[in-house]
Amino acid sequence: MEKAQRTDIATLGEFGLIRRLTEEISLKNASSLKGVGDDAAVLDYAGKRVLVTTDLLLEGVHFDLTYVPLKHLGYKAAVVNFSDIYAMNGQPRQITVSLGISRRFSIEEMEELYAGIRLACDIYGVDLVGGDTSASLTGLTLSITCIGEGEEGKIVCRDGAKENDLICVSGDLGAAYMGLQLLEREKSVFAGEKDFTPAFEGREYILERQLKPEARKDIIVELDKRHILPTAMMDISDGLSSELLHICRQSHTGCRIYEDRIPIDYQTAAMAEEFNMSLVTAALNGGEDYELLFTVPLDRHDDVAAISGVHIIGYITAPSLGAALISRDGNEITLQAQGWNSLAEEPDPTKEEPTINP
Amino acid sequence: MEKAQRTDIATLGEFGLIRRLTEEISLKNASSLKGVGDDAAVLDYAGKRVLVTTDLLLEGVHFDLTYVPLKHLGYKAAVVNFSDIYAMNGQPRQITVSLGISRRFSIEEMEELYAGIRLACDIYGVDLVGGDTSASLTGLTLSITCIGEGEEGKIVCRDGAKENDLICVSGDLGAAYMGLQLLEREKSVFAGEKDFTPAFEGREYILERQLKPEARKDIIVELDKRHILPTAMMDISDGLSSELLHICRQSHTGCRIYEDRIPIDYQTAAMAEEFNMSLVTAALNGGEDYELLFTVPLDRHDDVAAISGVHIIGYITAPSLGAALISRDGNEITLQAQGWNSLAEEPDPTKEEPTINP
Repeated sequence: MEKAQRTDIATLGEFGLIRRLTEEISLKNASSLKGVGDDAAVLDYAGKRVLVTTDLLLEGVHFDLTYVPLKHLGYKAAVVNFSDIYAMNGQPRQITVSLGISRRFSIEEMEELYAGIRLACDIYGVDLVGGDTSASLTGLTLSITCIGEGEEGKIVCRDGAKENDLICVSGDLGAAYMGLQLLEREKSVFAGEKDFTPAFEGREYILERQLKPEARKDIIVELDKRHILPTAMMDISDGLSSELLHICRQSHTGCRIYEDRIPIDYQTAAMAEEFNMSLVTAALNGGEDYELLFTVPLDRHDDVAAISGVHIIGYITAPSLGAALISRDGNEITLQAQGWNSLAEEPDPTKEEPTINP
Repeated sequence: MEKAQRTDIATLGEFGLIRRLTEEISLKNASSLKGVGDDAAVLDYAGKRVLVTTDLLLEGVHFDLTYVPLKHLGYKAAVVNFSDIYAMNGQPRQITVSLGISRRFSIEEMEELYAGIRLACDIYGVDLVGGDTSASLTGLTLSITCIGEGEEGKIVCRDGAKENDLICVSGDLGAAYMGLQLLEREKSVFAGEKDFTPAFEGREYILERQLKPEARKDIIVELDKRHILPTAMMDISDGLSSELLHICRQSHTGCRIYEDRIPIDYQTAAMAEEFNMSLVTAALNGGEDYELLFTVPLDRHDDVAAISGVHIIGYITAPSLGAALISRDGNEITLQAQGWNSLAEEPDPTKEEPTINP
């Protein structure tokens, strides 16, 4: 028997693998408007835009039950899907929840998980309409698909940014990442001990950002109120750098952002100092912020600047200028995608990175 | 610290757990027409019916890569989702595919898996529009969500069967289950050997039914051509008994089916004899047939009987008569759900069994 070729998946990484698997896919149905490559797929049902996004969470890869309470896990798993729908300027309406459950879990624990999912659904006005539940040989598997609704002409993709557009982000960045660092440190400190009750005083904000993030529905509402339709938008799940590069690549542009404009919370900065980590790296590459990154035409400057919690951090340029950060001392630093990439040994920032509704 | 209550999930089983987790869920959005409890959820987007179903497949629980080629796995994983949409009298249009991949898989193997998914999409006219790809610590995880389209007034649920309706099934039953028995036996015979090439001559049909099932789009087309709208319908994934009990429970009816009317292929019968297994048990409880089970009003007898591949196996009764099989020798045997239930130690047929779009 001839030996089949075997190439390690690590040589491609997550984005490379997705590109390889999906590059020849063409859409056949009239109702399939947009497939792989944005926060959500866009479907057309009777003129209504239907948005679909999906997320697979595996124990030990995406979450650690040593310090993540099941209710928080459920809440976060639901919210990160809603965030993808908002990032298309849509409204999440339904989710399906599939669970793979190993024998070490009890009914009460699964009720805790569901309580978190249902709380998120209640707060964001989303219905849980289906799913699949099964045994798992190892750990917990959670797969959530979210269906949302958008209006024709108002769906915002990643490919619409234009030269001179303003680059905006909501909230602040890097906090969820620093929260994770803190949890990981406390976990190693308390390793082997039964009661995991470290002192988290004064770090509540970064912990909440990691354990119980929210989706920025409020920003979508504010933009709509002011009749601002972003030219491009996505949510920041893999880190600002990675997401900005997606927008630039898909919009065929470059960009400049300013280090001193990147919004960072006090607790994030304090934690970075304690860990002796670069604050700008945490903010650029930390990920899991679930804030909105979007671009608007320059003439909407005053309107967008008036929205509480929105920061203008830079502008879109011609593609030839590349994507760069202007540091506090005025140096230009090329942006690299060092976002979380669970399939690669080392992320390769020189590779093109198509995405499959991540 | 007070010790939390811990109840084994096995005490409830899959259906019991789903009921526990979802019983208090009420739908809030106008676009959520029908949630947990049928083959697919039913949504309303601008008057169009959007159907959503999802399936989670875990290595070692739902498939065994010792004898399941990855291309077949991909094909089957897609087709079983299409089957759920057809079972609502809808047309599958889009799928999302989420993959959790452990390090032992190569890029080429994932291409094989995708080749199967894409072949199924091509044959059934479905678009792959998104997904999520990630590392897994253990084995392969595959989560597929399918979105389909239906017409208002033509969606067929499980709860519409009426007294005296005819009970129909497409194709034949028990073959996929006997195919699985054969594969399991050959696996144990060849255990430890590197080349797994058993002689499967004369068993091609039952193996194909297990490894490469098809969804009965053709039956949906035939029913539509003849203007037959079933009163209830579902696909047979857990076994005829289990599915019939779902229809009876949700329609508040009883039923009678006849042993000698249950369609069974010659290879299925031969294999059951070789294994010394009860043929009727395989047909009633085997599962994974992905045939359609549906009910039609009595006055459509001649029309439905004229469809090639459809068998009338019994009729719907008043609920007080219960659900029973009339054996060849005229005895009445109460139907019990012994379908596959990966979460229970022993299935409990006396329990009510709500489902979550399985």
